[in-house]
Amino acid sequence: MTASAIDRSGARDHGAPRARARAPRVVRVALAGCGTVGASLVTLIRRQRALFEARHGVTFELVRILVRDPAKERGVVLPRHLLTTSMDDFLRTDADVVVEAIGGFDPAERVVREALAAGRHVVTANKALIAAHGPALQRLADDQGASLQFEAAVGGGVPVVRTLRGELGGHGVRTITGILNGTTNFLLTAVAEGTRFADALRDAQARGFAEADPSRDLNGLDAADKIRILAWLAWGVDPSTLDVRVEPLPADPDPLAALAKARDGVLKYLAGAVRGDDGTVRAWVRPVIIPRDHALAAVRDEENAVHIDSESLGLLRLQGRGAGGSATASAVLGDLLGAVR
Amino acid sequence: MTASAIDRSGARDHGAPRARARAPRVVRVALAGCGTVGASLVTLIRRQRALFEARHGVTFELVRILVRDPAKERGVVLPRHLLTTSMDDFLRTDADVVVEAIGGFDPAERVVREALAAGRHVVTANKALIAAHGPALQRLADDQGASLQFEAAVGGGVPVVRTLRGELGGHGVRTITGILNGTTNFLLTAVAEGTRFADALRDAQARGFAEADPSRDLNGLDAADKIRILAWLAWGVDPSTLDVRVEPLPADPDPLAALAKARDGVLKYLAGAVRGDDGTVRAWVRPVIIPRDHALAAVRDEENAVHIDSESLGLLRLQGRGAGGSATASAVLGDLLGAVR
Repeated sequence: MTASAIDRSGARDHGAPRARARAPRVVRVALAGCGTVGASLVTLIRRQRALFEARHGVTFELVRILVRDPAKERGVVLPRHLLTTSMDDFLRTDADVVVEAIGGFDPAERVVREALAAGRHVVTANKALIAAHGPALQRLADDQGASLQFEAAVGGGVPVVRTLRGELGGHGVRTITGILNGTTNFLLTAVAEGTRFADALRDAQARGFAEADPSRDLNGLDAADKIRILAWLAWGVDPSTLDVRVEPLPADPDPLAALAKARDGVLKYLAGAVRGDDGTVRAWVRPVIIPRDHALAAVRDEENAVHIDSESLGLLRLQGRGAGGSATASAVLGDLLGAVR
Repeated sequence: MTASAIDRSGARDHGAPRARARAPRVVRVALAGCGTVGASLVTLIRRQRALFEARHGVTFELVRILVRDPAKERGVVLPRHLLTTSMDDFLRTDADVVVEAIGGFDPAERVVREALAAGRHVVTANKALIAAHGPALQRLADDQGASLQFEAAVGGGVPVVRTLRGELGGHGVRTITGILNGTTNFLLTAVAEGTRFADALRDAQARGFAEADPSRDLNGLDAADKIRILAWLAWGVDPSTLDVRVEPLPADPDPLAALAKARDGVLKYLAGAVRGDDGTVRAWVRPVIIPRDHALAAVRDEENAVHIDSESLGLLRLQGRGAGGSATASAVLGDLLGAVR
């Protein structure tokens, strides 16, 4: 397929953003972990193949998938010969890009470090890993001439990492405020509409919006990892040592939500960071009652939003789907494109 | 300066997003045009020099500035030896990146074409040029292995071009709706607050938010160029032949604004594009009365906003400063970084 490919509509594709008359470049992708995000990514890569060849001149070829249980049902057909349960076998695979979709530290950290050390590009959605080791992993990537991409680690499909790495990086960012945890926002939206918190949580777990163990969402540690990453990108502070004051959601937020309603406000679980005039950065995660007409009050269900106030751009607002396999996989796919261009 | 540079706060800079221990790479920048955007860019490059060296490992060195009148007052000190009024002299300059900040077609188009043909990266804020010749210029860039960046052409500081070129490019975008003209939004915000349109226009011109000749803003052609570019990026259609139905603002919008108020709504000047199930793309620019609680009703003054609805991401909203030299220059600077990374 070439730049003058015929798309589904039968119209000539004018090849935005990067038309190429050459045969598509094959990019070999090794995927570590095939849960919700990994399986969504495999589906997206297959569905977008023709468009990616026409638009971006690349074809992503899955060359190895690291899984714990090859027999597990994933809602997507995976060729048996691509699956491996052996970390050594996976790391030996000759890939251009390694996608880490395992989460947590062990063995995700080993996958990322060894892939970068071998000069492979790495794409990850792993907020805990980036919050703890982002600067060191970035140095390793830079030293090896490899690309480290993690758009999906913060904000799901909301392009906040790209924005802070791009024109806003170092451009006099003053404050960052946002709703960075889709699970708690989904719960608080239901509570604001009259559902009891305990019922909303049970419903969210049944529908897959909350994990079986939602404690890192409810106690604020998930949002804290994300605001650490954004503060690192905005100001260059070490995310692992940044002081984040975290106030968990109350075990029963219903009374606080009722108080918000009585005050014509809305209870939201916010995260923020600010750089003072002396250069110190302070960050926080806490439940806040905000006025009903505040822009963040309109962020509903599993949406995320980030407001970035900077000297050169004023207030920039980004808002969109923050949770769910397809939003995260879409961000990972954007990173794959960014890594190989 | 190195990756362990000391930033203004005295804290060690942890080098997000790309720390480098090497000496900064010097990137030679030739600037065509030094009006509001060009002068703001020169100021920004100087102000951010230390941070860019530490964060991104690059130093932008201005090597030539093409101007019509070297004696003109620009609010920024320009070394005389960098200035030239000769197009041939400018095009012969050995630069890594050419920034086109002239606007319009002649001589902007020649600058962009010859720079790309010489294999130089090009950054431009020129919406008319990209709307008319984007695909051809992109092919030229691709053939030469050069980068063509135009984030500032649409949305000012709102990162919509980057977003559509990245994870959303070809990802089943269904509709794009937005406020793409900051001048008319500034005027309609004043009108909604009770100012007569004629007075608001005079005020905007005095304060530099509206040009002496604002006809391309008021008749919708500016917004039409921008929605053409977004439709090209989203769906690969040829922007120059895309049918955009353009309805100008009424010569006196006061009665329509009064009607909006009577209906508890707000008059906004919107642009949009939609891809039908048969693959055809339709685009439009027109004044619309929207409900007061609609997200676009909260876009005030010179702000721009873009809402992108896609299969994989649902509704993504981007909102921020759309007009003004510093927002545009900031987007150009982000493109400069993107072009050389």
